[in-house]
Amino acid sequence: MGLMAPPFIRTNVRDMAGYTPGEQPLPGDRVVKLNTNENPFPPSDRVMKALASVEPEMLRRYPSPTADIFRDAAAKLLGVTRDMIIAGNGSDDILTIATRACVGQGCRLAFPDPTYSLYPVLARLQEATPVTVPWGPNWSLPTEALIETKADAIYLANPNAPSGTFVEPGTVSRLAAGFPGLVLIDEAYVDFAEKNCLALVREHGNLVISRTLSKAYSLAGMRFGYAVAQTQVIAEMMKVKDSYNCDAISVVVATAAIEDQASASQSWQHIRAERKRLTDALTAIGWGVIPSQANFLLVTCPGGRGREVYLGLKQQGILVRYFDIPGLTDKVRITVGQSHENNALLAGIKRLATGEKAA
Amino acid sequence: MGLMAPPFIRTNVRDMAGYTPGEQPLPGDRVVKLNTNENPFPPSDRVMKALASVEPEMLRRYPSPTADIFRDAAAKLLGVTRDMIIAGNGSDDILTIATRACVGQGCRLAFPDPTYSLYPVLARLQEATPVTVPWGPNWSLPTEALIETKADAIYLANPNAPSGTFVEPGTVSRLAAGFPGLVLIDEAYVDFAEKNCLALVREHGNLVISRTLSKAYSLAGMRFGYAVAQTQVIAEMMKVKDSYNCDAISVVVATAAIEDQASASQSWQHIRAERKRLTDALTAIGWGVIPSQANFLLVTCPGGRGREVYLGLKQQGILVRYFDIPGLTDKVRITVGQSHENNALLAGIKRLATGEKAA
Repeated sequence: MGLMAPPFIRTNVRDMAGYTPGEQPLPGDRVVKLNTNENPFPPSDRVMKALASVEPEMLRRYPSPTADIFRDAAAKLLGVTRDMIIAGNGSDDILTIATRACVGQGCRLAFPDPTYSLYPVLARLQEATPVTVPWGPNWSLPTEALIETKADAIYLANPNAPSGTFVEPGTVSRLAAGFPGLVLIDEAYVDFAEKNCLALVREHGNLVISRTLSKAYSLAGMRFGYAVAQTQVIAEMMKVKDSYNCDAISVVVATAAIEDQASASQSWQHIRAERKRLTDALTAIGWGVIPSQANFLLVTCPGGRGREVYLGLKQQGILVRYFDIPGLTDKVRITVGQSHENNALLAGIKRLATGEKAA
Repeated sequence: MGLMAPPFIRTNVRDMAGYTPGEQPLPGDRVVKLNTNENPFPPSDRVMKALASVEPEMLRRYPSPTADIFRDAAAKLLGVTRDMIIAGNGSDDILTIATRACVGQGCRLAFPDPTYSLYPVLARLQEATPVTVPWGPNWSLPTEALIETKADAIYLANPNAPSGTFVEPGTVSRLAAGFPGLVLIDEAYVDFAEKNCLALVREHGNLVISRTLSKAYSLAGMRFGYAVAQTQVIAEMMKVKDSYNCDAISVVVATAAIEDQASASQSWQHIRAERKRLTDALTAIGWGVIPSQANFLLVTCPGGRGREVYLGLKQQGILVRYFDIPGLTDKVRITVGQSHENNALLAGIKRLATGEKAA
């Protein structure tokens, strides 16, 4: 592809491979899909009601440029003001907006490694340099090393992907206090964790909290995310976003979703319980499981054969995620599914061990 | 705002005002809305059927990263291949993708002026310089002057906004042949015109055609656009877009919309007929109307009082667009509505002239 790229394409783009999304089977494919961290439960009934209420006129007219109905609902839920929130077309849009607002050509974007593989892509799109800092022992935050990068921005997925590990808010607060640039906390998975960093936004003017409805609210197909930060940061991010970045349907659907906390939190409780059950079951058969605060587990496969496990499970119609990246080749990442899906996974793993074929 | 902007925000962003979208009245406000160029007719029944068919599972799972169902339908309709098409979250997303792919820091983005006010915003977000070239006599393309800018990219809205004027494909072809950089033809309004530049994509490797479903298919609220270009250009644009930039609902809705050409083209015919009627009526009372190939008219108000006309109509519950920009202050832009809306507009204008109050 590099050779064919037209000369008017920027060099940084020509030299990039782009982000590779996880496998998405076609609708109708019968697989146990535990590879891209979707919530295994359907969205709230109120979401489907909101969707059914969409009238032709909502499609015909431009939407609210700033998704204000959602911002008001989220502000109420989170105890902040509307002008501390910006909505986005998924949290990928939020990450793009933050990066374009703060990370220009020649800048440096630092993050603990390994983490969400989009971060270096975002940096390169800006002709900025990604700076990786290895996680400390037991996935502890390398706070000093991150600060010492003197980068322009630090991104922290918390809980982290693909490890599922969580950095305590007190540690994040020390990072934000010791670093003058943007500190973006990507809380895509935070609703499955016990704590979050939202309250830190009041203390730190350089902190941006990014959230998504993809996982916690079962809306990966809808694309809706948001960020919380101090007013003056949100005002600048607003200038960078596309004029109408959230469509009219997504705004009413997302609003209905966060207004039904009972439904969403039921799924979170179920996932936490299943996460514990899976952790215990895999540990019992000798697999290394990193304690997770997310809706997935990063597990070390016996004999370090991550690829073989991924392929062996795929052959049985069970999709998990394998990362062909140094430091991760002995592992697979498993999304916590519904009980029956997790049972299918455990049975599949058992078959791998015994060499038995799937029924 | 400039004073309050945090230091970690890029200077180009701090110094920007951002794009100002047109006024959007709240749902339920009773206005004749002729200010933001929406199609006055509702979307096709097939669109509403597609929407009703959305199942919870479509929301729960990630969508196709490349909106392939839509690309296949569009490829069939346009007589190109799937890999010559990229889908976007509105054509604003397409314009952002093209700009990020081709216009880096220190680059120059040229366009005839006045035109869509987003183009300079897109340039400044990249720390690039917008280069304006005045339109030739009677809104003719300043082809040589554009080429002589030696810019990195040229953007041409065709039909142009806010003038509604159209540049012949032969002229566009000469521009693309004489210019080594990206030539982006923004065909947001092309379905209301008699011709388009699609066929030129085969001849010119530096041409990108941008389209939107907002106006022609009555889907401004849905956010869906696409670009057509040669395969190697689309491949590079794919690297720049957000991973899942089109949500699952928008893909099925947009596909249903373009598959119902009968419904859409009926609205285009009606709008063309009403455009002629409005043009004739306004000309008859002495207003200057620029011949339009779009779904709006740029009209010169008697006495050059654009702002007064805008405010006088607004007071009567009729919204048109006024641009407080040198060269446009004597004009207003009027979206062509349904017959009864256009009648209301003409009656409102008559009242302005006689000083009569709205009933």
